[in-house]
Amino acid sequence: MTKTRVLTGITTTGTPHLGNYVGAIRPAIEASRDPQVESYYFLADFHSLIKCHEPDRIAESRREIASTWLALGLDTDNAVFYRQSDIPEIPELTWLLTCVAAKGLMNRAHAYKASVQENLDAGNKDTDAGINMGLYSYPILMAADILMFNAKKVPVGRDQTQHIEMARDIGQRFNHIFGEEFFVMPEAVVDERVSVLAGLDGRKMSKSYNNTIPLFEPEKKFKKLINKIKTNSLEPGEPKETEDCTLFQIYSAFSTDSDVAKMRERYAAGIGWGEMKGELFELLNEQLKGPREEYQRLLADPAYVEGVLQKGAEKARALATPTLDRLRAAVGLGRFI
Amino acid sequence: MTKTRVLTGITTTGTPHLGNYVGAIRPAIEASRDPQVESYYFLADFHSLIKCHEPDRIAESRREIASTWLALGLDTDNAVFYRQSDIPEIPELTWLLTCVAAKGLMNRAHAYKASVQENLDAGNKDTDAGINMGLYSYPILMAADILMFNAKKVPVGRDQTQHIEMARDIGQRFNHIFGEEFFVMPEAVVDERVSVLAGLDGRKMSKSYNNTIPLFEPEKKFKKLINKIKTNSLEPGEPKETEDCTLFQIYSAFSTDSDVAKMRERYAAGIGWGEMKGELFELLNEQLKGPREEYQRLLADPAYVEGVLQKGAEKARALATPTLDRLRAAVGLGRFI
Repeated sequence: MTKTRVLTGITTTGTPHLGNYVGAIRPAIEASRDPQVESYYFLADFHSLIKCHEPDRIAESRREIASTWLALGLDTDNAVFYRQSDIPEIPELTWLLTCVAAKGLMNRAHAYKASVQENLDAGNKDTDAGINMGLYSYPILMAADILMFNAKKVPVGRDQTQHIEMARDIGQRFNHIFGEEFFVMPEAVVDERVSVLAGLDGRKMSKSYNNTIPLFEPEKKFKKLINKIKTNSLEPGEPKETEDCTLFQIYSAFSTDSDVAKMRERYAAGIGWGEMKGELFELLNEQLKGPREEYQRLLADPAYVEGVLQKGAEKARALATPTLDRLRAAVGLGRFI
Repeated sequence: MTKTRVLTGITTTGTPHLGNYVGAIRPAIEASRDPQVESYYFLADFHSLIKCHEPDRIAESRREIASTWLALGLDTDNAVFYRQSDIPEIPELTWLLTCVAAKGLMNRAHAYKASVQENLDAGNKDTDAGINMGLYSYPILMAADILMFNAKKVPVGRDQTQHIEMARDIGQRFNHIFGEEFFVMPEAVVDERVSVLAGLDGRKMSKSYNNTIPLFEPEKKFKKLINKIKTNSLEPGEPKETEDCTLFQIYSAFSTDSDVAKMRERYAAGIGWGEMKGELFELLNEQLKGPREEYQRLLADPAYVEGVLQKGAEKARALATPTLDRLRAAVGLGRFI
């Protein structure tokens, strides 16, 4: 019985918020405990350089994300948890793949095309204005992330399936040119039920909308933020809709079905927004208090977190190093003896 | 007094021939003995993957080139002689630079533009047809080769000066974004007097014309090849021009000025082509016999050559590893402690 290998990259430019937690971190941590699955989670810090040229922001984000995942109980015995930049085999494989990847493939990448469109919309004659080569060629880096470990399943959002197709295309081409099944073809796993939380203003919670509630904000500030969540102007006592209600949506993401059902009744009975916000804070705080303390402890102990990541890198490289040796020899770059 | 650091890459797809020797290898080996100069010579095998997907050809070429340079007396104590693919810091730096390199810069690269033109000339609507990402982005790899070691001088042919300009552009941009003089700006050194030898058919000796005389061909075959060099149909006794005479040109590249002057007189006096070919063979064979034997010995001892290259890689990495650590920290990818 072989385990299914699942790979997930985490971009390191932001601070984890409630939306990240419900949509990505919580399910991933649950999966990390599944003995049938071999999970690879990595801090995609090489990727973060494409859009972020603020070293402090990247450095901070990496510490926050690593501490978050560990504080929430990621099983690093069962899962492989590493930092992309600790695996020198990744950029090396990226170059090997670069030499077989068609330029035409990159021309079709959504992110690149969107940037070209922005230039066109702005009336810019140079459609490549402001575009760096990282943005253009990162599908190859992503292919290397995936193919390096022969990951079979890659959970992604619907907008990311193209990247997996590209990884397949590049991997297949490499296999074909060098005449062997070096790479397993990865499959995108799109979970349509992925929970997307709304943010302070009711739009999708996202760093780019500046409407996030950081997961491990100190208690007082956390309470303040919850109180800032936008509601309509219905008074206490007036029946309220649960649909499209940010408070109810967040509440549901942290509650059992029966508690959700009860809250639905209280909405119908006209629960006041102030009361609801208090309930929501209590519910979340109860669940997050422990991890939050652990998070603060880990943030204050970078040596420990570094040690965990180094162990993860060792595990990852135990696989990457011999794989790359084999690939190097296959393309003609092996040692002389 | 600081030494000038000079860097030269050697592409690893062909077998060294007389033209390579006179134009590049011989002057480089002389330079390797200059105590004022710190020479970096490397087998550019990552580059060779762009155009060559024949692993055996690349592997063979790497062994031949390394054995050639050593057989000819490269001073590996004074010079750093390494294989690009032994320096994992190179592809990693390539990625850091990729994230600051403008895509527009790559659009202007001669090699890429030439390929696009070929597609246009062939009436191909897809101007990127058949172009791989290696061809498109290798100026960034080349920038990494140069900037990694802060090489000050890069000897290149006139057609290659653009690459040095691009390395400067990319290095400057990196310095600017991350606010420090991480990289020294490299300078192209174009030696206009570089000797270009003609080949068997009178055109420039080049693998792509299939008109080369391999440097260390076994004696008998070597003699045969020299006898195949194209001449005009003048008979012995008829005065001959030295200009545009391949035999005379090769003879000159291996002779002292006074011997060249004497041969010029013999041309005027009507030396026969057969006699001249015999003289040329004797001259070259005398100079190449010793190195040829050493070359054969080295080819038969890959372990020794591998050891020399490993020592070179160690020397190169003694510089590359701390440099990359510093760059990694500068962009936000440092360790947590």
